[in-house]
Amino acid sequence: MLKKYFLKRSVIFWLIWPVAFSLAAGDSSFDRQEFACQAKKMAEAALKEEKAYEYLKTLALPGGRLTGSAAAARAVAQATDLMTQLGFDQVRQEPVEVNRWQRGQAEKALVKSQKRGQHSLHICALGNSIGTPSSGLEAEVLEVHSFDELNQWPQAVKGKIVFFNIPMDRTEPNPFAAYGRAVPYRTNGASAAARYGAVAVLVRSLTFRLDDFPHTGLMIYDEKIPRIPAAAIATNQAEQLSQWLKEDPQLRLNLKMSCKQLSPVTSANVLGQLTGEEKPEEIILLGAHLDSWDLSPGANDDAAGCAVAIEALRLIKEAGWKPKRTIRAVLFMDEEFGGTGGRFYATSASRKSENHLLAIEQDNGGGPPVGLALRRGDKIIEKTEKLEEILNPYGINWIRPGGGGVDIGPLIQQGTVAGNVVPATQRYFDFHHSALDQLSAVHPREIELQAIVLAIVSYYFSQEGI
Amino acid sequence: MLKKYFLKRSVIFWLIWPVAFSLAAGDSSFDRQEFACQAKKMAEAALKEEKAYEYLKTLALPGGRLTGSAAAARAVAQATDLMTQLGFDQVRQEPVEVNRWQRGQAEKALVKSQKRGQHSLHICALGNSIGTPSSGLEAEVLEVHSFDELNQWPQAVKGKIVFFNIPMDRTEPNPFAAYGRAVPYRTNGASAAARYGAVAVLVRSLTFRLDDFPHTGLMIYDEKIPRIPAAAIATNQAEQLSQWLKEDPQLRLNLKMSCKQLSPVTSANVLGQLTGEEKPEEIILLGAHLDSWDLSPGANDDAAGCAVAIEALRLIKEAGWKPKRTIRAVLFMDEEFGGTGGRFYATSASRKSENHLLAIEQDNGGGPPVGLALRRGDKIIEKTEKLEEILNPYGINWIRPGGGGVDIGPLIQQGTVAGNVVPATQRYFDFHHSALDQLSAVHPREIELQAIVLAIVSYYFSQEGI
Repeated sequence: MLKKYFLKRSVIFWLIWPVAFSLAAGDSSFDRQEFACQAKKMAEAALKEEKAYEYLKTLALPGGRLTGSAAAARAVAQATDLMTQLGFDQVRQEPVEVNRWQRGQAEKALVKSQKRGQHSLHICALGNSIGTPSSGLEAEVLEVHSFDELNQWPQAVKGKIVFFNIPMDRTEPNPFAAYGRAVPYRTNGASAAARYGAVAVLVRSLTFRLDDFPHTGLMIYDEKIPRIPAAAIATNQAEQLSQWLKEDPQLRLNLKMSCKQLSPVTSANVLGQLTGEEKPEEIILLGAHLDSWDLSPGANDDAAGCAVAIEALRLIKEAGWKPKRTIRAVLFMDEEFGGTGGRFYATSASRKSENHLLAIEQDNGGGPPVGLALRRGDKIIEKTEKLEEILNPYGINWIRPGGGGVDIGPLIQQGTVAGNVVPATQRYFDFHHSALDQLSAVHPREIELQAIVLAIVSYYFSQEGI
Repeated sequence: MLKKYFLKRSVIFWLIWPVAFSLAAGDSSFDRQEFACQAKKMAEAALKEEKAYEYLKTLALPGGRLTGSAAAARAVAQATDLMTQLGFDQVRQEPVEVNRWQRGQAEKALVKSQKRGQHSLHICALGNSIGTPSSGLEAEVLEVHSFDELNQWPQAVKGKIVFFNIPMDRTEPNPFAAYGRAVPYRTNGASAAARYGAVAVLVRSLTFRLDDFPHTGLMIYDEKIPRIPAAAIATNQAEQLSQWLKEDPQLRLNLKMSCKQLSPVTSANVLGQLTGEEKPEEIILLGAHLDSWDLSPGANDDAAGCAVAIEALRLIKEAGWKPKRTIRAVLFMDEEFGGTGGRFYATSASRKSENHLLAIEQDNGGGPPVGLALRRGDKIIEKTEKLEEILNPYGINWIRPGGGGVDIGPLIQQGTVAGNVVPATQRYFDFHHSALDQLSAVHPREIELQAIVLAIVSYYFSQEGI
């Protein structure tokens, strides 16, 4: 009797055990070994087709996608169409009210030197700058090499155009660290100089290279200080101007800039997703920014990131993987003018029913992936041993604490784990914010590898949770 | 008495101990912590000056440096001058007798199709190939996609031009692995087809990209089989030819190639070194190859490697580091035709009094460094924990077993440990052996980082030993 009971139980037990175990195990029922095999197949198909580069071309087609511009609106429409064609779930635009700045006519800068004659310089207005009077603005030039130097001789500044000639520090092996140290002159230089009566500022372009292309970028006015025009000068021309100033400190510079703020307009973040089958309200976000500067199609910054996010979703879908949690691509609007899109996204009413576990932002260019940075890393990095092994063939050498970005910043503040697929970046600032950021700056295989890594990482965490 | 003796001994002991210890400890007296600080300073100066790119320009100046050509001879002279100017020790040329192949006039390939008319194709002779008769050679074309396919229909081959249309496998994430699988068609395709009576072969160029530039490279004849002409066809044209063959299998191809072997000449490997102060006969070798193909200045393959080896030596010298063992740059001649320079170097009488501990070959292009491969790795990788930490800021994410190369092959066979500073290589085959391998393929910071890593690694082992 007893024996019979056990036999019976045993039969039932073995019949229902696989189901019961898989239900009880929850996340751990994700078969990592099997996933490693599938990831390899997915990557092979990805590298064969190189679709990320196709999407890059589509997204970059409208040209420079300055926030609030007609080109940015076309990019919003095109990205929406693309994600719809690819069959993503819930493709939609979430409105974002953005400020609108326009460059107007090409800027002019004319050096007038008694000794050297007249020479025009390659400059461009910094984003957010006011223009000069329509007749232009003319003054002597004061070259400085630091804020300290500026602050030491406040009386020398009045009535001058201050020329911040601070090169990005080539001795720094990490390009983003060098950028971080030089960028305050671009963002805050105008108000720092205006405080002492400067009439305009010229800021040396932020690139390691000597070239003839001004590199623009955001500048911000201190509300307590009068606004003055701010422009970037190409590095070759900065060197030249510095030389001329040594020979003729009294030379004058005539500036004409017609840039200005227009009234705000409604633009949009573009979203598409693969809805999770078990926990659709838990989100793994793949973000990049759809806007760019106006001087080029912004291929590297950040059409590449957008293309990679879209391609990652397509790869997951094509592989037939069914995420338990939602994996969502978000192409943010207005990263370049300070992240309006990211703030709108994080605070939108639509977020209330959602829980963002992980937000990965791709905005470091289309270079070949070398590592994976995860904020609050210690906690999740324990889960990534198998992941690291799966990612290794695609260039990922490490998974370390780190990660973040302008667009996902507001989500991070709400407690979302941040991540980045980190690429090699030695060439990044060669193109950055200049006319050089063309399609040729990005390599089809390098961005495809980014997309592969993003697909693997996002699907892994959609199954494993955070 | 006893006490006095000990006291005395103690005083003497403590006086002489530091000297005695440092002598006894030998290699371990190398202060790794101090070296880490010095390495950082060295790297800062290196990145500021970017001299590797200057040397690259100098070395690439003679243009395509085909083994045995006048341009290769100019490159030998220029490299010797450069190392002399930089003040290296024992700068010298070691003679190497090399075979000499010349392309002659630009190759011509004309498709003649009843349906499609006449079209010329972009081709180039493969290195080592014989030419066609001066009047040209004309035949029908048989397209095959593997050696198996060729071997299945031997009767179809006779009298034909065999077209090996085998793309590099894009699904492979590692470009060198994909190259390795496709390159046998280039090296051995001619004899494989001639065995069945083919009159010539066309081989699809080895690049992942679709472009209009034929990519050449070495081919080798089987001595037992008649020699037939062998050429590479640009990938775009390979696709086109394949399409035309579907439409008109009887189309004929007319080939004209005037390439031929000339008599051997004496060329040279170029050597320069920093002689070791304690064990000058023990050598850490930094190798690259000075010859290139003739279709471009071979900037990436391998002027970059040569520039990096020279720059590494300069950095060590400029830093004032005094290697215990000799660190030697060797710019090998004739890597592209099979490594004559490497064999001459390894077997030269001058080697008899030397002991090569480590040979690092840089011949994977000028990309940003990502790792360090060391053959017989398990043994030395134990010594590299501190080294890995020092190298990390310059892109090195791992130190793993591996390493090798054509030029250092003979040394490896003699027991030398091999190494490579491994760069990112996704772009490598875009340029490889074609007219596209121009200076613009190489980035000043990326090769400078390679030089920094090479300087640190070679100095480290010159002090630590292997």
